[in-house]
Amino acid sequence: MSVKIAKNSGFCFGVKRAIKIAFEASHSVDNIITLGPIIHNPQMVEKLAEEGIVSVNNLNEINGRPTIIRSHGIKKETLQQLKAGNINIINATCPYVSKTQEYGEQLSREGYTVIILGDKDHPEVEALRSYVEGDVRIVGTADELPTRQYDRVGIICQTTRNIKDLQELGQKLIPLCREIRIVNTICNATTVRQASTIELAKESDLMIVIGGKNSSNTKMLAKISENYVETYHIETEREIEEKWFENRSRIGITAGASTPDWIIVEVYNKILKCMGNIDKIVENIEDIPGFKEE
Amino acid sequence: MSVKIAKNSGFCFGVKRAIKIAFEASHSVDNIITLGPIIHNPQMVEKLAEEGIVSVNNLNEINGRPTIIRSHGIKKETLQQLKAGNINIINATCPYVSKTQEYGEQLSREGYTVIILGDKDHPEVEALRSYVEGDVRIVGTADELPTRQYDRVGIICQTTRNIKDLQELGQKLIPLCREIRIVNTICNATTVRQASTIELAKESDLMIVIGGKNSSNTKMLAKISENYVETYHIETEREIEEKWFENRSRIGITAGASTPDWIIVEVYNKILKCMGNIDKIVENIEDIPGFKEE
Repeated sequence: MSVKIAKNSGFCFGVKRAIKIAFEASHSVDNIITLGPIIHNPQMVEKLAEEGIVSVNNLNEINGRPTIIRSHGIKKETLQQLKAGNINIINATCPYVSKTQEYGEQLSREGYTVIILGDKDHPEVEALRSYVEGDVRIVGTADELPTRQYDRVGIICQTTRNIKDLQELGQKLIPLCREIRIVNTICNATTVRQASTIELAKESDLMIVIGGKNSSNTKMLAKISENYVETYHIETEREIEEKWFENRSRIGITAGASTPDWIIVEVYNKILKCMGNIDKIVENIEDIPGFKEE
Repeated sequence: MSVKIAKNSGFCFGVKRAIKIAFEASHSVDNIITLGPIIHNPQMVEKLAEEGIVSVNNLNEINGRPTIIRSHGIKKETLQQLKAGNINIINATCPYVSKTQEYGEQLSREGYTVIILGDKDHPEVEALRSYVEGDVRIVGTADELPTRQYDRVGIICQTTRNIKDLQELGQKLIPLCREIRIVNTICNATTVRQASTIELAKESDLMIVIGGKNSSNTKMLAKISENYVETYHIETEREIEEKWFENRSRIGITAGASTPDWIIVEVYNKILKCMGNIDKIVENIEDIPGFKEE
């Protein structure tokens, strides 16, 4: 029997950075809010609320308070409104997301029809779209793109997409375009986490994917894992059912970029309990077999 | 029994234009030469020689004579040498080839590592390469490209390549590059001719591909056709063997962009003779069943 964690599970650079910015700001500034959840993990957002950092959803709920910009970024026009309102802005946008926004601006300025590979309802994509002027399309997969001739197409990606989807989009567009310019804005942490998840899923007979149900990158991990083995996507150990582990001996765990370590540890320990291995429970993520950051 | 020709067989726009430029020039200018064969069809080159337009291979054979630049273009430095030598230059470079050279110059000026999809020994590619400054690689297929990380890659193609090879190259490079810019310089005539060849090959039990043995686009047609059915690549009707047609009833013909109509007609008539259908022989390409220009 084994319970292993995929390499590169949990917090990425951008999430760590956003949380650090938020906590540090809360020590020196009062009444801070975040515009939208700072990361897509309800448990972490709750923890921040305990520190007095609450999340509001609309500009008119800000009431002049210092405002943290979430890791996914916000729309260009929203940023302008915050500035116009003389709001103290604390920017926790992931630098890789900001870079994607710059590419979006650049491609549209250079006259490309911009295609965003992403989820059109995701805040990162909504923000990204606002930086693209002129012709823009948002697609989740190549199938969603109409098959017709295009002239000059520029592609950028939500940072948490799958490289295979980008390859399929390229494959479809190459015969349809005179020119195609693909900026691979899928962040490296996403790519290595997905690869590690596949590696572990291949040698497991059950995978548990941990992370916010609203987390795009976690949903993507679950989708990828399902291609190999039975997979459950959970937010916390409370969702785990003992019967999942009947006749299973090789359990794999992976976690999204916004999943805190303490939740992963709780899930690991709960799985051990379900499997009758209570003597092996751990206190730190580093003690879970297979843990490694690349 | 049927003998059909693939739609869009024979001369393309660039070849027609080059031949026209050569013949027209020969009416007003004496002692014209071409630097390298004007097109890749030995029979057509022979015909031009009868009109006094001979092909030389080296600059030092020119001896001050008016010089036609072949449809495939020539190296940038060779052009400069002709100009420096005050040679009367008659430019028959295919405009699509010239456009590809411009893209090559542009991509290298903008700092891309340039990859040319093409045959490194083909004069079009040799000329194209000369327009790219800095880092350049020439590959015939994706397999020839080392699998390593690249930063910003620009791809251009020999005008007669296959779109599938370009897709495979894109597929391979997308995960390896931060940015990839693909200018699809495969000319439209190439694409429709290849598609028409596949269409006919699928419904034939033998394919005859006509064109210069040195013609890149003709060799590509033969390679594509071979994936579907037994295929022979010939230059003229003299190479045809009667035994090829034993137990064959649906013969397909296709011809490269540099194959003159008269050669295609001779091949068609020879096939009819081999199959005992001498009463159906034709005088013009337009009379061959299936002939159509798009």
